Amino acid sequence: MNFDVLRQQIKQQTDEQLLRLISQLPDHAPRLKAAMQHALLVGGKRMRPVLTHLVGNTLDIPRQDQLTISMAIECVHAYSLVHDDLPAMDDDDLRRGQPTCHVAFDEATAILAGDALQTLGFSILADQPMSDYGSSQRAKLVSILASAAGYQGMCGGQAIDLQSTGNAIDIEALTRLHRLKTGALLCACVKMITLTSATVSEQEREQFVRFADIIGLAFQVQDDILDIEGDASEIGKPQGSDVAQGKNTFPVLLGMANAKQELTRLHDEALQAIAGLPYNTQYLTAFTDLMVNRNH
Amino acid sequence: MNFDVLRQQIKQQTDEQLLRLISQLPDHAPRLKAAMQHALLVGGKRMRPVLTHLVGNTLDIPRQDQLTISMAIECVHAYSLVHDDLPAMDDDDLRRGQPTCHVAFDEATAILAGDALQTLGFSILADQPMSDYGSSQRAKLVSILASAAGYQGMCGGQAIDLQSTGNAIDIEALTRLHRLKTGALLCACVKMITLTSATVSEQEREQFVRFADIIGLAFQVQDDILDIEGDASEIGKPQGSDVAQGKNTFPVLLGMANAKQELTRLHDEALQAIAGLPYNTQYLTAFTDLMVNRNH
Repeated sequence: MNFDVLRQQIKQQTDEQLLRLISQLPDHAPRLKAAMQHALLVGGKRMRPVLTHLVGNTLDIPRQDQLTISMAIECVHAYSLVHDDLPAMDDDDLRRGQPTCHVAFDEATAILAGDALQTLGFSILADQPMSDYGSSQRAKLVSILASAAGYQGMCGGQAIDLQSTGNAIDIEALTRLHRLKTGALLCACVKMITLTSATVSEQEREQFVRFADIIGLAFQVQDDILDIEGDASEIGKPQGSDVAQGKNTFPVLLGMANAKQELTRLHDEALQAIAGLPYNTQYLTAFTDLMVNRNH
Repeated sequence: MNFDVLRQQIKQQTDEQLLRLISQLPDHAPRLKAAMQHALLVGGKRMRPVLTHLVGNTLDIPRQDQLTISMAIECVHAYSLVHDDLPAMDDDDLRRGQPTCHVAFDEATAILAGDALQTLGFSILADQPMSDYGSSQRAKLVSILASAAGYQGMCGGQAIDLQSTGNAIDIEALTRLHRLKTGALLCACVKMITLTSATVSEQEREQFVRFADIIGLAFQVQDDILDIEGDASEIGKPQGSDVAQGKNTFPVLLGMANAKQELTRLHDEALQAIAGLPYNTQYLTAFTDLMVNRNH
């Protein structure tokens, strides 16, 4: 199957499952429910579910386990975007070309929607259908997701990002920041899906995780490049908004030419990470190309 | 042992364990870490840990399981207070007589601290030491906590509270609101600790949960009464602040005399709920008295 077709299938399936999940919630707080749905389904590339399914398919993980893990990750990712966009944080009005949650609803509802989406992520790992083997790993899946999402991962990264905005930091600090803020959750996709395989070796698992780690950095470098060179209508937010906010970005710290060179280096490194694996990795290669070459 | 001494012991032990947990976090985001600690250790009666330990002791649950469950619950409770106090929500500057998290730090840090504390709650259930039997229940514990904390519990209740502030609702709606906003988490304490007992019967379990449900309502009625009649220095916030914010409260809806009668009725009902249990329930009786008679 063509990679783009597969990717669209995964995206569509993830969207459908998330919509089903939200629709099943009772109606006692309709505004909150609508805000959660807005946050979850405002579009997006579903990069995390795509990565999860690609590695899952490679390892013959049951579809149900792939879906459950993808949904949990997307809930946590969606919550983080809602809170990052808040006036007290990045104060963004647009996300993927649509009003952010606090603009479409209100600030209090957006805070609560983020809160409830985070909870929903953990609830999915505890409750949604999985294979027998997958089910036996639920507590460990919660452990991985919590570790990636909390102080030691995403939240910690966002805190460092806020602290360093407006203050120049060095490239090592910027890399560390993004490893926490974006990389931890991407790595968690791979750690979780490989955990539901009874057969993958520890060494192979480490290779997959290393791949995700590098992909996460490459994604961020390209994000920073797009902030400067991208088309606002493609990236769904005003051009240059990160730089205008005083964010540290790779092109600002390295210069644009060096940032692009770094992206090429990360591209090669990602492919090397999975080079020796005894699986067909053509889709993971296509995924890497997409992350590096995307225009939004 | 005297109930007050036992209660102080549980509170002290919970505080120590929570402090230990926060101290063990790495230092990469010191401001966020300090805000999490502030939110967790700003005082408080530790009513949820006390209830958890009292029921746990009654059922001979290993101490380690009691502590793990208590810590998880307190993290989720603390996160909810931090977010409820935010300017976009209840906009409270004082909590237990001390500056709220966004006042002591800043709004962005408070949002993140709440987020990271919620994650920490789930992480504790997945990772902190438990007995073998307790460990086998981790995924179900996560399920109970998530169900109580999210849209179908606390977050949903807070959303209804926000929607109904400034609009009169009837007593049934107010009761439903508090069952979600406060009651769900109190019931979760009891659902979780009884789940770690291999011997408690389903009927006994339901009695304990019913007890917690009624205690939750009684707690809220007394809270509303204290908002009007309490001493500001005791309750740690300005007197009448709920009423001033246009919150629906039991005395406002029922009149003070009827609210006090309702409290007495709930007191009796709580004791009835545990009356037939084949355990020594003297501490649970003392706990009920405390909830109803407390002055802060």
